[in-house]
Amino acid sequence: MQALPHPWLQSLVGDEEVGAIFSNEAELSAMLEVEAALARAQSEVGLIDKEAAERIAEACKSFRPDWQKLAQGLAQDGVIVPELVKQLRATVGDPHGTSVHLGATSQDIIDTALVLRLRGIIEIFEARLSDLLSALRDLRTRDGAVKLMAHTRMQQALPFMAAHKIDTWLQPLERHAENLAALAPRLLVVQLGGPIGTRGELKDRGDAVAEAMAGILGLGYAPPWHSQRDRIGEFAAFLSLLSGTLGKIGQDIALMAQNEVSEVRLAAVGGSSAMPHKSNPVQAELLVALARFNAGLLGTLHQALVHENERSGAAWTLEWMVLPQMVAATAAGLRKAQALAEGSGFLPSSGAEH
Amino acid sequence: MQALPHPWLQSLVGDEEVGAIFSNEAELSAMLEVEAALARAQSEVGLIDKEAAERIAEACKSFRPDWQKLAQGLAQDGVIVPELVKQLRATVGDPHGTSVHLGATSQDIIDTALVLRLRGIIEIFEARLSDLLSALRDLRTRDGAVKLMAHTRMQQALPFMAAHKIDTWLQPLERHAENLAALAPRLLVVQLGGPIGTRGELKDRGDAVAEAMAGILGLGYAPPWHSQRDRIGEFAAFLSLLSGTLGKIGQDIALMAQNEVSEVRLAAVGGSSAMPHKSNPVQAELLVALARFNAGLLGTLHQALVHENERSGAAWTLEWMVLPQMVAATAAGLRKAQALAEGSGFLPSSGAEH
Amino acid sequence: MQALPHPWLQSLVGDEEVGAIFSNEAELSAMLEVEAALARAQSEVGLIDKEAAERIAEACKSFRPDWQKLAQGLAQDGVIVPELVKQLRATVGDPHGTSVHLGATSQDIIDTALVLRLRGIIEIFEARLSDLLSALRDLRTRDGAVKLMAHTRMQQALPFMAAHKIDTWLQPLERHAENLAALAPRLLVVQLGGPIGTRGELKDRGDAVAEAMAGILGLGYAPPWHSQRDRIGEFAAFLSLLSGTLGKIGQDIALMAQNEVSEVRLAAVGGSSAMPHKSNPVQAELLVALARFNAGLLGTLHQALVHENERSGAAWTLEWMVLPQMVAATAAGLRKAQALAEGSGFLPSSGAEH
Amino acid sequence: MQALPHPWLQSLVGDEEVGAIFSNEAELSAMLEVEAALARAQSEVGLIDKEAAERIAEACKSFRPDWQKLAQGLAQDGVIVPELVKQLRATVGDPHGTSVHLGATSQDIIDTALVLRLRGIIEIFEARLSDLLSALRDLRTRDGAVKLMAHTRMQQALPFMAAHKIDTWLQPLERHAENLAALAPRLLVVQLGGPIGTRGELKDRGDAVAEAMAGILGLGYAPPWHSQRDRIGEFAAFLSLLSGTLGKIGQDIALMAQNEVSEVRLAAVGGSSAMPHKSNPVQAELLVALARFNAGLLGTLHQALVHENERSGAAWTLEWMVLPQMVAATAAGLRKAQALAEGSGFLPSSGAEH
Repeated sequence: MQALPHPWLQSLVGDEEVGAIFSNEAELSAMLEVEAALARAQSEVGLIDKEAAERIAEACKSFRPDWQKLAQGLAQDGVIVPELVKQLRATVGDPHGTSVHLGATSQDIIDTALVLRLRGIIEIFEARLSDLLSALRDLRTRDGAVKLMAHTRMQQALPFMAAHKIDTWLQPLERHAENLAALAPRLLVVQLGGPIGTRGELKDRGDAVAEAMAGILGLGYAPPWHSQRDRIGEFAAFLSLLSGTLGKIGQDIALMAQNEVSEVRLAAVGGSSAMPHKSNPVQAELLVALARFNAGLLGTLHQALVHENERSGAAWTLEWMVLPQMVAATAAGLRKAQALAEGSGFLPSSGAEH
Repeated sequence: MQALPHPWLQSLVGDEEVGAIFSNEAELSAMLEVEAALARAQSEVGLIDKEAAERIAEACKSFRPDWQKLAQGLAQDGVIVPELVKQLRATVGDPHGTSVHLGATSQDIIDTALVLRLRGIIEIFEARLSDLLSALRDLRTRDGAVKLMAHTRMQQALPFMAAHKIDTWLQPLERHAENLAALAPRLLVVQLGGPIGTRGELKDRGDAVAEAMAGILGLGYAPPWHSQRDRIGEFAAFLSLLSGTLGKIGQDIALMAQNEVSEVRLAAVGGSSAMPHKSNPVQAELLVALARFNAGLLGTLHQALVHENERSGAAWTLEWMVLPQMVAATAAGLRKAQALAEGSGFLPSSGAEH
Repeated sequence: MQALPHPWLQSLVGDEEVGAIFSNEAELSAMLEVEAALARAQSEVGLIDKEAAERIAEACKSFRPDWQKLAQGLAQDGVIVPELVKQLRATVGDPHGTSVHLGATSQDIIDTALVLRLRGIIEIFEARLSDLLSALRDLRTRDGAVKLMAHTRMQQALPFMAAHKIDTWLQPLERHAENLAALAPRLLVVQLGGPIGTRGELKDRGDAVAEAMAGILGLGYAPPWHSQRDRIGEFAAFLSLLSGTLGKIGQDIALMAQNEVSEVRLAAVGGSSAMPHKSNPVQAELLVALARFNAGLLGTLHQALVHENERSGAAWTLEWMVLPQMVAATAAGLRKAQALAEGSGFLPSSGAEH
Repeated sequence: MQALPHPWLQSLVGDEEVGAIFSNEAELSAMLEVEAALARAQSEVGLIDKEAAERIAEACKSFRPDWQKLAQGLAQDGVIVPELVKQLRATVGDPHGTSVHLGATSQDIIDTALVLRLRGIIEIFEARLSDLLSALRDLRTRDGAVKLMAHTRMQQALPFMAAHKIDTWLQPLERHAENLAALAPRLLVVQLGGPIGTRGELKDRGDAVAEAMAGILGLGYAPPWHSQRDRIGEFAAFLSLLSGTLGKIGQDIALMAQNEVSEVRLAAVGGSSAMPHKSNPVQAELLVALARFNAGLLGTLHQALVHENERSGAAWTLEWMVLPQMVAATAAGLRKAQALAEGSGFLPSSGAEH
């Protein structure tokens, strides 16, 4: 259930809803959905019997994995699919076992199963972005007229209104929401290429299978893209941009919440084990930490764009190690920003009063 | 004339055309264009006399800076504009000197001048991407039927055609070209906010000035965005995605050019000081280096998204240090990829023959 | 039990032994050890009663946490210690409860508990490095005379011996082992500073308490260092350097294991779900992925060196998110390299034969 | 003369003294010194005539390069040495021209020439670190008793003394100075390996040549290390650690210099083009920017540790693109920190007064 390391950190910077989407169970479930869709699509275009497709679909539903063997298979093969297909074929049994995973490769299953889950994640992000925009607009309505002091280069500049400050938070978030909507159809596409990405094992019906599969799964169609990782890299860039905007909000709030500045009051603050008088802007600080975390991870993930030849074990594994963390960190940031937007109130700047 | 460090590296990984756009002269010229447009826009909306605007425009054309004082001013103020405005006002002289830079701030001039130059850079990139796509399509037409061996996880997989390999290069490049076109109007917008980003010094005519200024400069209109750095971060992500795709092409070619593999022959190769028989795939290796460079710089630049309050000297300077390098590295990569696309020929894989 | 995200990844790139050291249980246990040592040290210098110290030590041993409240406390306070101290004081009860955590702050407990666990990790790394050096020396003894082809810039250069190749792996590992031994005493020091790092709450006996505490815990003595994160950054750099060397070994092996090159045979290879003939150099590829992962994370962790004022919630949390992953990735790399060193055999290069 | 991109940035974040060491002229001069030392060492062990060595040494002194051809050679070969050797051999002329660069490879010359220049850079860093430590100790003597307010998690914590704050700056700098001294002998070693790093072309006298060469150049001896990049990676980590400490100092000062906090007064501040009352803590902000820059570059440079086989054009070029920038950024940071240490005065905290 974890997409972030260090278990206690889950309480601090994790996100249960999104974390669950990266659980073993959720990944397995998505992979089985892909295998079932593949079989059904192949039956639609006449590559396998309808009966085979039905039997496979049933087996995918009732499948009970041997988790330990899956883990061993992953450790040996570097991907989980060979062992999974073996178990799934045994579950399907004769005579349809050989129709499982026909003409497909590990990457078809894993990448499409990732895309399926990213669809759910994008929905969550859209909802949370929408909520955050609402909360910020409400805050603007309520406190927009509060007189604050603008600060440039860490120095008092001139007085302005809380509405001005909030606008600098709202506007990039509005762009992020638009960009996410524009990006989603590019990202949410089926991957089907077979062992070397040519759909060669599917004879002349590869494109038809991919189209049918996309339809069944509710994804867009695309030519095989398994060695073209720009979609993943683009989504990761979106995550870091969004986290960066949230980090700016967090940094602003932490600066305004300084005792000496006191331009914001926070509903939820953290206590200290040594100083009972402390009211720490924990959520705001976390937004900064999450932004710096995701920025660094983005630079790491883009190293995986150099995906050599028809499949890079090194580059692909690097994606697995980085992307789920970025997603979870972004999700956590959205929650924390929401809490801050709802729990913050602006206070007139004493400096701006004069 | 340099946007990359280490002067000799210019020959290797620099780009003269794009580098020139980041020269002092080009930046000064763009800043003067912005100051002139600001004055003209202010005269259009009635904030300053038409005569003042004309005098300022003339002065911007004839302006001869004291370069040394500009550098000193930059070192002291952290931005070049205060000293530039001082010199420019002196050039304009009485009575219109005080109309120079009216109601504007350093960031208005520097960011808009950056955007003006990014417009030229985007045009260059569009042209180079188009050329590269053509060259790869030509290569595909000529050599697409050559039988190669596909490789997955660094091992021979199954035979396929050169066309398949080239498709994995073409398709993300096509997406990059589309994404650049989609991104350009978001990026190429005027920045005008005044000292704290509220257009407060322009009375109730700030938006009108910004609109007029955008029209004069041929940029899009936007509300003040100087503490919203997502546009810069989005463009940088584009650069790293493109470089990453080029890096994958380079890595593929370097692997195919291995003596033991010999699936590609290169027109231009590098020699060795010690081994006369060597034919080094220098351009291909450089694409890998440029991709890893830009990926890392992207992670660094996104740290600057945490742009505190109404202006962060730290975050803004970090952008200056990183963005020009990323642009130049991308530009160099496009040139090298072009040379490779034009100078490579596929050779039948001996492995795929069997 | 996890220090890496994405649970299945544990089988692939995790390390159970080191992962366990970052479990909640292990962290709690280390924190209780620190609280007990603090009390005992304070009793030694006369700040609290001997009886209080004994009662606290007993309570630390028998302590049963309310895990859920700990997690809630962490989420609210940004650190786990305030809630932990509350629970621990309740366990100790009257009259000695108030002697728990006397004059200390969260960071004293968490940083010292981290250092205690890093001591165990350094021991594991020393042992694994020693084993890896032995395995590589054995490989050199056995296969050192095998004639290989050296490759520079991805091209055949000149023939040489396997011993030469192995030496380029051994020598940096020997330096890493030396550097780890040199670094350990700098890193393995007690942190005791109190709320603002001055030991002010311990009156004039702060240094004496810290010295006694260091003695009890078997750590070195140091002045308070909680806002000086160079030790953590230096250790992280060591991790990335070591992972980088292992990544070079992995990359070399993956290149030599190419079918066309065939200079190495691997005992353990991965299978494919689509191509039964494949023998994938999975372990070698993983070393490359782990190296790139740790390199990127190092750049992220060093962002946390900018640790503002007397405690940065943002920078400190960022360390928590990154360091355990780097440790686990390094540990996993050492295991995989060991398996490769034991399971690889060099084969004469056909190119070098001529 | 530039090791940082964007020419104006030289005034802001460049360092003339260190930048000069990365000029073409300085690199060429160091490479010629290495070629001369190689020849002299070979004559000492009897590989070439004494007369040849003398003639080569003379030619290295009087050598006038054809810069344009050097740049062309670099662009083609990916390294400058083949063309340089060609020109140098022509300068030496018959009969000793063929004795130039005997048994050596590009990397021997370039890496050793880098090490020679890093020696000068380390001397500069040692001197600047020593000056900075002195300035901070003087500041501590003068202002150490000033009462400040400690801040944890961006909130007022408890009062303490300026001496406490300065100690958190001094102590890591003292460790950096020690670590630099410890690191220098590991880094400052000769590289001599010949084309594939075996010294094979030097017959059985390779080690003797390397030892003699090290003696002549005043460097330490080491076995060939050209594909072992841990020394470079370790030095880069040092640079980032040092920059990170300076960044913490800068961040602290920028926070203390906030108008609302006013715990520090700065001798040198920056002005604004729009707000004459502003006193911007430009030097302090730059230290933060330089720290984040170097942290990100470190993560990028460590990607080059995966240096495949006997020479990686990709990884080596990546080092060239990153290391000089890191060195220059560190050098600039030391200067700026010096100016801050000399030009800052602590002011009693009004908060701490109560």
